[in-house]
Amino acid sequence: METVPGYTGIARALLERAGARVGDRIRIVQRDGRVFEGILMPRYALSAKPIIVIKLDNGYNIGVRVDEHTEITVVKTREAILREAAAGAPAVVPLLEEQPPLEKRPRVMIIGTGGTIASKIEYETGAVKPAMSARDLVEAVPEIGFIAEVSAEVLMNILSENMRPEYWERIVDAVAKSIAEGFEGIVVAHGTDTMAYTASALAFAFRGLPVPIAFVGAQRSSDRPSSDASFNLISAVLVAARAPFAEVTVVMHGETGDTYALAHRATKVRKMHTSRRDAFQSINARPLARVYPFERRIELVSEPLQRRGEQELRVMNGFERKVALVKYYPGMDSEIIDFLVDRGYRGIVLEGTGLGHVGEWLVDSIRRAVENEIVVVMTSQTLFGRVNMNVYATGRKLLAAGVVPGDDMLPETAFVKLSWVLAHSSSFEEAKRLMRENLAGEINPRHTVDLYPRWPH
Amino acid sequence: METVPGYTGIARALLERAGARVGDRIRIVQRDGRVFEGILMPRYALSAKPIIVIKLDNGYNIGVRVDEHTEITVVKTREAILREAAAGAPAVVPLLEEQPPLEKRPRVMIIGTGGTIASKIEYETGAVKPAMSARDLVEAVPEIGFIAEVSAEVLMNILSENMRPEYWERIVDAVAKSIAEGFEGIVVAHGTDTMAYTASALAFAFRGLPVPIAFVGAQRSSDRPSSDASFNLISAVLVAARAPFAEVTVVMHGETGDTYALAHRATKVRKMHTSRRDAFQSINARPLARVYPFERRIELVSEPLQRRGEQELRVMNGFERKVALVKYYPGMDSEIIDFLVDRGYRGIVLEGTGLGHVGEWLVDSIRRAVENEIVVVMTSQTLFGRVNMNVYATGRKLLAAGVVPGDDMLPETAFVKLSWVLAHSSSFEEAKRLMRENLAGEINPRHTVDLYPRWPH
Repeated sequence: METVPGYTGIARALLERAGARVGDRIRIVQRDGRVFEGILMPRYALSAKPIIVIKLDNGYNIGVRVDEHTEITVVKTREAILREAAAGAPAVVPLLEEQPPLEKRPRVMIIGTGGTIASKIEYETGAVKPAMSARDLVEAVPEIGFIAEVSAEVLMNILSENMRPEYWERIVDAVAKSIAEGFEGIVVAHGTDTMAYTASALAFAFRGLPVPIAFVGAQRSSDRPSSDASFNLISAVLVAARAPFAEVTVVMHGETGDTYALAHRATKVRKMHTSRRDAFQSINARPLARVYPFERRIELVSEPLQRRGEQELRVMNGFERKVALVKYYPGMDSEIIDFLVDRGYRGIVLEGTGLGHVGEWLVDSIRRAVENEIVVVMTSQTLFGRVNMNVYATGRKLLAAGVVPGDDMLPETAFVKLSWVLAHSSSFEEAKRLMRENLAGEINPRHTVDLYPRWPH
Repeated sequence: METVPGYTGIARALLERAGARVGDRIRIVQRDGRVFEGILMPRYALSAKPIIVIKLDNGYNIGVRVDEHTEITVVKTREAILREAAAGAPAVVPLLEEQPPLEKRPRVMIIGTGGTIASKIEYETGAVKPAMSARDLVEAVPEIGFIAEVSAEVLMNILSENMRPEYWERIVDAVAKSIAEGFEGIVVAHGTDTMAYTASALAFAFRGLPVPIAFVGAQRSSDRPSSDASFNLISAVLVAARAPFAEVTVVMHGETGDTYALAHRATKVRKMHTSRRDAFQSINARPLARVYPFERRIELVSEPLQRRGEQELRVMNGFERKVALVKYYPGMDSEIIDFLVDRGYRGIVLEGTGLGHVGEWLVDSIRRAVENEIVVVMTSQTLFGRVNMNVYATGRKLLAAGVVPGDDMLPETAFVKLSWVLAHSSSFEEAKRLMRENLAGEINPRHTVDLYPRWPH
């Protein structure tokens, strides 16, 4: 067996000179005095860059860029570490999986679309790179090579606040192409700001999905070794390669530590914090699965809508642009609704109050919108819970005006769904009917009391 | 001592005929066969209605309407209950406070504005009354009479989705009048849908506040004895009468059980669920206090901004109407911003993505808005966390265009604040400066990690 599998060039030469073997604890001293210490990992060689991969004591792998001035020493051999561990010493013993034979690893495609995850993996330089190719991701996070036979493609480089329906359509096409080519799972690297919108766009566009799709991003623009990018990417590749479900998911940190990530159903997830690593949370639903990247383990939390291989790929791409999401506030002027009607909008998602209300002075404008065959859907700005427009007079007036109740759909999901529905229905009535149907898990018919988070007080 | 203090007319006659005394366990059998059993409570007589108040085993008091066909029997005397309890029996022994002398109870004004709380207290009939006067609230929840010398006024009867700045102004005036008259605490009964908006409007309008103001409502339109209306009302009266802080608060159920209510700072609270009793939760802040209504106890959780009696009442009433709250979504057309500019809006609160972003194609329209001296404020649709527009290029572009970062303000609070600020600043620059100042606890300069809720996974 090779002592330093995957290493070439100067990296290989340095390791051989030091007598280091994979599994040994080594110390790397750079010319500028920086010191890295950890377990030497095998390299999944996609490129010939002079990088040595070590596993730090915190469980993360990092890639250290080396040159002829780098000094490497073996601190402790693998045998000594295992001996001490057997005797009860608190040694770090990484699971050194043998690289599985190529033909056994599932084929996963990573599609890069932009965002923070593509700007922060260069541990060795400390620099925040503005745009990194998906191939660079593989380079920087070698562990994904053990999980899957990874291919990578940079589809676009868009900050996610600049995402819009035309890009959703391009991503749908790219993912469909990869699935048709036989990839067994797809990872979409995406900025976090609007990741949930794009992910749910894919959930509606793929009416049949034979493999999992995992959206992934990074919350922090930082050069820290504990950046969430690699943790999330490993988790997403694991979901794409091995998850039993064939759904569109968002895979991001589950808590502030590095224990597990969560795979959220795309239509039920929302970015709930500006900066925390565990910003993404399922609303009105439990996540689909907990994902333990270091243990290579996926634990189902919810029943999947469909399992891997159950369905044939059916793509219904296309999103109507003339759809608006309108959040209600006290005193909101009805001229805002009138404006949308006059500008030819075809759909309006209202984010009303409570069980699904708006000020009564808007009812006439809303009725006029419906008479113009604009689909008007009601959701709630409370986010949690379910719209019920039969309880109070205002709700009943809005129902009478033709508003479609959005059940427990997130306002953002209802917006994406309406955009999709309007592009794929042949009549106003069909569009309204489809908005009430549960197409991609966007409606959870049964809420348990434990779905509500526990608040700090 | 009187055996049935506070009772008059038929109620008194029935009790005397049965030989019942306050503290006895009695059974009330109605003509229609319905049976109520509980501890006879003294009556705080604000009206002469034929109602007998008993404490149920679940801790709630209910008022039972009686007539000449009602039969009352004493199940167990107070002495027997106390004897058994002393011997260890699991008897319900309510704390029977003596009614304090009138001059010792703080004077509390309850101002009715409408909403569910005013439509559901009639336990004895099971009917959902559409509009109940504040005096009726006192009638139906006798316990508040032990806590405070309660006055009541029906100011308006508005479903809270129909609230708007002109009503905020009327409520400010009514509250100011009551404070000037010497009331030591104010309760505002309000529908829950937009309660947080109205409460924060008052927080900005009262620049000096010598007493606590407690907004209160009911989440469930139900005729169940365990309706949250009375629990919340007792808690709110307790806050108004006895809280050490002089702030505007929202007082609502803290959890699904009947253990405690929470007093939330008005500028940091949000309705987070369509129907749960604990729908109101503080975001980016801990609540101000936990309130245990049955134990008459208030436990401070956060440091108050100001304490009772520290400040002189200063009222700055008035809210600008031409302010919009605009939630961003992928692909949002810039014509929506242009429309608001053209319609003479003076302020726009954007609910952007992540750290405070919108699509770059909106920047020109936003710049034009600012050039027209429209104050544009950025908040985040994540709700949790803090806007930071220096991290990414889009944020910096928006700052350069003149957007005011909203820090960790809730979008709804920023909307109300901007409406207030524009009515009380003499220049565009002053308005922008005030938006960045912490006027009423709407900005929490320091977040601890435990402010984020614990999500179910």
